[in-house]
Amino acid sequence: MAQTMLWKGDSLELLDQTKLPLIVEYISCTGYERVGEAIQNLEVRGAPAIGAAAAFAFVLGVKNLFKRSPKLILPQIEEIDAALRQTRPTAVNLFWALDRMLNLTRRLHAQGEAPEEICVRLEKEACWIAEKDRQVNQKLSAYGAALFQEPTAFLTHCNAGALATVGVGTALGVIRAAWAQGNVKRVFADETRPLLQGARLTAFELLEDKIPVTLLTDNMAGWAMKKGLIDAVIVGADRIAANGDAANKIGTYSVAVLAKEHQIPFYVAAPVSTFDFSMESGAQIPIEERKKEEVTSVFGTPVAPQGVDVFNPAFDVTPHALVCGIITEYGVLRPDYVRAIQVLQEQIKENEQG
Amino acid sequence: MAQTMLWKGDSLELLDQTKLPLIVEYISCTGYERVGEAIQNLEVRGAPAIGAAAAFAFVLGVKNLFKRSPKLILPQIEEIDAALRQTRPTAVNLFWALDRMLNLTRRLHAQGEAPEEICVRLEKEACWIAEKDRQVNQKLSAYGAALFQEPTAFLTHCNAGALATVGVGTALGVIRAAWAQGNVKRVFADETRPLLQGARLTAFELLEDKIPVTLLTDNMAGWAMKKGLIDAVIVGADRIAANGDAANKIGTYSVAVLAKEHQIPFYVAAPVSTFDFSMESGAQIPIEERKKEEVTSVFGTPVAPQGVDVFNPAFDVTPHALVCGIITEYGVLRPDYVRAIQVLQEQIKENEQG
Repeated sequence: MAQTMLWKGDSLELLDQTKLPLIVEYISCTGYERVGEAIQNLEVRGAPAIGAAAAFAFVLGVKNLFKRSPKLILPQIEEIDAALRQTRPTAVNLFWALDRMLNLTRRLHAQGEAPEEICVRLEKEACWIAEKDRQVNQKLSAYGAALFQEPTAFLTHCNAGALATVGVGTALGVIRAAWAQGNVKRVFADETRPLLQGARLTAFELLEDKIPVTLLTDNMAGWAMKKGLIDAVIVGADRIAANGDAANKIGTYSVAVLAKEHQIPFYVAAPVSTFDFSMESGAQIPIEERKKEEVTSVFGTPVAPQGVDVFNPAFDVTPHALVCGIITEYGVLRPDYVRAIQVLQEQIKENEQG
Repeated sequence: MAQTMLWKGDSLELLDQTKLPLIVEYISCTGYERVGEAIQNLEVRGAPAIGAAAAFAFVLGVKNLFKRSPKLILPQIEEIDAALRQTRPTAVNLFWALDRMLNLTRRLHAQGEAPEEICVRLEKEACWIAEKDRQVNQKLSAYGAALFQEPTAFLTHCNAGALATVGVGTALGVIRAAWAQGNVKRVFADETRPLLQGARLTAFELLEDKIPVTLLTDNMAGWAMKKGLIDAVIVGADRIAANGDAANKIGTYSVAVLAKEHQIPFYVAAPVSTFDFSMESGAQIPIEERKKEEVTSVFGTPVAPQGVDVFNPAFDVTPHALVCGIITEYGVLRPDYVRAIQVLQEQIKENEQG
């Protein structure tokens, strides 16, 4: 299984996902700026992976400050934090991870801890975030796999796999666990234009694991459903509102509508760090618009006439009414989601206090 | 406006649509075999354009036979016809045009017409088919434009424009006519993977005509509808069954389902040569499967790992229940389509006898 990131103590090695599947190459990031760039350029992507990468970037930033000066100045750390927060707007795991890092920094700073100690504790926290993601992937994968008690043909969109996380993945984690139990007939992978994460990353991961995978262009998903090829849809998420509305890679909403039309269950798999309890509904989730060249060219080759206007939202929001279940490390949430997510929030609090 | 084909009497010049929009280049076909190849390779594509190209190919074939021998032998002509019929299976206009050419040949042959005369009459017939398509495009465009009495934002899929026909196009013909009447706000063009006819051809045609066009990837159509950007969908067709089920470029079915979900009218625009009255429903329409490389690479650049399985149907079938109206040169058909298409068939007969 591909290793999305490796922490080396004074550098973060990131698998360059823009070059996959043709080239397997790591980027060695020795400063937070390079990690921020990697997040912006999608060299590292996937909500949970972005969270962990940002946490390590925070550590690199603080360590480098400490190298330059024996004192750690809080506003300088807050600048690093602010820069990292501006890399991408939609995935909430980024903010979740940075909140943890910044809150810890402020606490230690207020307690008058020595800079060395702050560095050690921040590194521990980032490692905990990464390790936590690994465990959380395993747990939610087990909950998810239990939903499929017979061989199932899955459709997935984009990449919610090992490459999107630190562990086995969310949607692909569930599929991997179901595969281990003999309950995967085949996985249909939407190629996921414009950046082809399905073709480049999901197909790559599943082939590596020898799980039968069929690649299709995004516009074939409806026809595949109509032809009876798909039993269930499972996708990841970048942010889930308090009512269960889920932002995920552009095209997810269309797949959800098509699944409804064909009475195929549509599941979202995501760790609880993907929930934004402060957002009442998906209407409030900011949707990143990316540059038009992503649509007008493929790997640098132009595919459209010069000067054409482009619509390029990176995400869309699937209304909770289209979601059959949300698979988390706390179990599978079912409608009514407002209530289910309130209960979830309480469980998380209890768990953190306990 | 781009000229899809030019008849020169001893050659057919075909605009190479696989190279658009970057390169505008014509292929000079002096034999039917090269036209057949062009149809197979999608150098010429679009149901009405394929019909006209096949008719001219038929003429080239017969003329070349006559050059080699002073007698025209019917089985040799039937071989040419059979070879052209095997180029692509879904678009019925190909068979409609070849039926006309072959029936005329048989009639003239039975009447004992001289080979010179047969060549002249076949050339006239092919020119009539092309000219007919031009007129038919105009007529159906006028009927279609009348449906839109205020500025409308259209979504279209694939290319049903001048490049798919001999004239102004079917779906894009309607849009051009609506534009001339001030009733086009903007056209959203699905890029239409795998071969990107929307990005390469539709965007190109509309930009040339200065009609405002926004390119989007296929998986963005649902989100664009959800955001209220689309007022109406209009697409072409490759074959329409006697109950109104319509085969068209892969992805059309998904767009139709999404339009229904958002209560957006979904129209099909096609000449009556696209109807296959012998097919009771769309279930009988043969769907071409094309090679996996169309999905796994873009303009020769690999976008997926080697060895991945691929699903690559070139078309899908939109059930008539999702179609709000079928725009033809005889007017706009509305449900009940079985009845409307029976009436249409009678009108065509009357017209041909009259």
